[in-house]
Amino acid sequence: MAVYTDITDDELAQLLADFDLGAPLAFKGIAEGVSNSNFLLETEGGRFILTVYEARTNPDDLPYFLELMRWLAKHDYPSAEPMADRDGRLIKDVRGKPCAITGFLNGLSVRRPTAAHCREAGVGLAGLHLAGEGFPMTRANDLGQPAWAGMFDGLEGAAEGLKPGLAKTVAADLAMLEARWPKGLPAGVCHADFFPDNVFFTGGKFSGAIDFYFACNDALAYDVAVALNAWCFEPDGSFNITSARQFLAGYESLRPLSDAERAALPVLAHGAAMRFFLTRLYDWGATPAGALVKPKDPLEYERKLAVHRSSPDLVLFGSSFAEASEDKARPPFEAPSGAK
Amino acid sequence: MAVYTDITDDELAQLLADFDLGAPLAFKGIAEGVSNSNFLLETEGGRFILTVYEARTNPDDLPYFLELMRWLAKHDYPSAEPMADRDGRLIKDVRGKPCAITGFLNGLSVRRPTAAHCREAGVGLAGLHLAGEGFPMTRANDLGQPAWAGMFDGLEGAAEGLKPGLAKTVAADLAMLEARWPKGLPAGVCHADFFPDNVFFTGGKFSGAIDFYFACNDALAYDVAVALNAWCFEPDGSFNITSARQFLAGYESLRPLSDAERAALPVLAHGAAMRFFLTRLYDWGATPAGALVKPKDPLEYERKLAVHRSSPDLVLFGSSFAEASEDKARPPFEAPSGAK
Repeated sequence: MAVYTDITDDELAQLLADFDLGAPLAFKGIAEGVSNSNFLLETEGGRFILTVYEARTNPDDLPYFLELMRWLAKHDYPSAEPMADRDGRLIKDVRGKPCAITGFLNGLSVRRPTAAHCREAGVGLAGLHLAGEGFPMTRANDLGQPAWAGMFDGLEGAAEGLKPGLAKTVAADLAMLEARWPKGLPAGVCHADFFPDNVFFTGGKFSGAIDFYFACNDALAYDVAVALNAWCFEPDGSFNITSARQFLAGYESLRPLSDAERAALPVLAHGAAMRFFLTRLYDWGATPAGALVKPKDPLEYERKLAVHRSSPDLVLFGSSFAEASEDKARPPFEAPSGAK
Repeated sequence: MAVYTDITDDELAQLLADFDLGAPLAFKGIAEGVSNSNFLLETEGGRFILTVYEARTNPDDLPYFLELMRWLAKHDYPSAEPMADRDGRLIKDVRGKPCAITGFLNGLSVRRPTAAHCREAGVGLAGLHLAGEGFPMTRANDLGQPAWAGMFDGLEGAAEGLKPGLAKTVAADLAMLEARWPKGLPAGVCHADFFPDNVFFTGGKFSGAIDFYFACNDALAYDVAVALNAWCFEPDGSFNITSARQFLAGYESLRPLSDAERAALPVLAHGAAMRFFLTRLYDWGATPAGALVKPKDPLEYERKLAVHRSSPDLVLFGSSFAEASEDKARPPFEAPSGAK
């Protein structure tokens, strides 16, 4: 839940005066996103989301995020389309903070994705990777592998506080990831935060993705690895190979992975777990007691790290690929035998 | 801001299965109300609010609140209409808590009401008092004058902590209010929390009221007094007599006050300030550090108490009544001379 900035009716009226969206009919803070403030905004012109960008979002990155969203909408990818004011500007100011108005995207996120949801999510991520082709702007992934060692600097004590011995284990992981990080994989626009709460379904079908505020250019298979970690672990910490197989089958129905991408998935998934472990570890220590947004438990990703660490390379995903390929011939929602 | 209860897509689907509202299209927690959790719910059948009642709302009171809302909607008062399930039930369960689905009410609340807004709000409150006539259920005001001495019991130290000497002043106020509390005024359905955040406007016109979860049967002029305190004080603590005059002119355009009600307004307003001071003082001490909802500052109502205490009886409202009556002949949005 997050509404950090309070917008008055007067401030809203002043903002809307620059747009051709008509008079406001309803305006409510909504509990969506953790880094920014979001408001449901209904006007005579339709339904929108007003996002006010808080300190955590670098204003210099906003043109990339918003132009990407515009690009995706123009290329028929189901995502929230930013609205331009009369001067063509997407980024506006309210109460001294940058903000943007985007279209309202229908759909519901799922809390406990089934294998069928995972397949649909895979389709949605591949669609994003294809729709992003040709987008002319670039943004480096500032939370990518080269950044991790620096991110862990100073957090050794926090890691030990979570679990004695963890600092040494993480340091070894970081060295391994640096040594084995794949180079030269197909790269493009990544969502980089394709978690279930950022993906909408309508009637069981993928209906759109939101929250492009970590989007960047990186290896597309790394984006797949981030999503596999987010979608395919059970609450008890076990990895659901059926869900992963379905996610990949859905993904490959639109964009088949190359052999190099497949081979890299285990180390990419290990690294993707490291990225979320590190930011959660940082937030865990940095969030003051009593903050509105409760930091996410870093131990969830510590457990995912451990799964990737203990599973021999390629076993995790490799063994399922033959079956995943078979799945491609099946209708989208018929679960393979053994599906839960 | 308040979303205390997390509803999963599965729980929502199970709830909606009892209704004829169609499949869900969107579902988002919204920052509205402080005692309950509220969600924007869009289905194939329209737009709704799902309210989940938290510990602070007594489940035994829900039939009164929801039947009142149904009554008001049927009597064309602009408010959120509760939706009945296929068995005619308004109160449902989700995650072991009572909940209800109501229609979505368009409109925006105002943060800094002008005198023109106050006039419209007065119209809206009088309309509620008239629409409530004949409502067959009753609910005593458990936060009314007879309850205040008991509410202050045990809070003397908290009052002293706010301001040395305050406990004694409040005790004297309570004795005065008990001695002078008016009896036999016209009674009926009161909103009892008719604050600006519970009142919607569209294009400057009153368009509806929400949050009937303090509604009760009490003196209607007491409800007016609660609203005068909420709408007519400036942020600097001064009382805006123009706003009060406009509020009363709007109110009386639909429901003229009797002489007894007018004469009682100063003591009712003093008492209404006491009621909100006492609950805020209680919440101030009872809210744990780090709670999601920040308690409201009791000093705001301590200052209002002081204004009512220091103003000689009848001066506060009495002197303006002749002018307020004149205002009735004016068109609704033409501010009287001297309006800010």
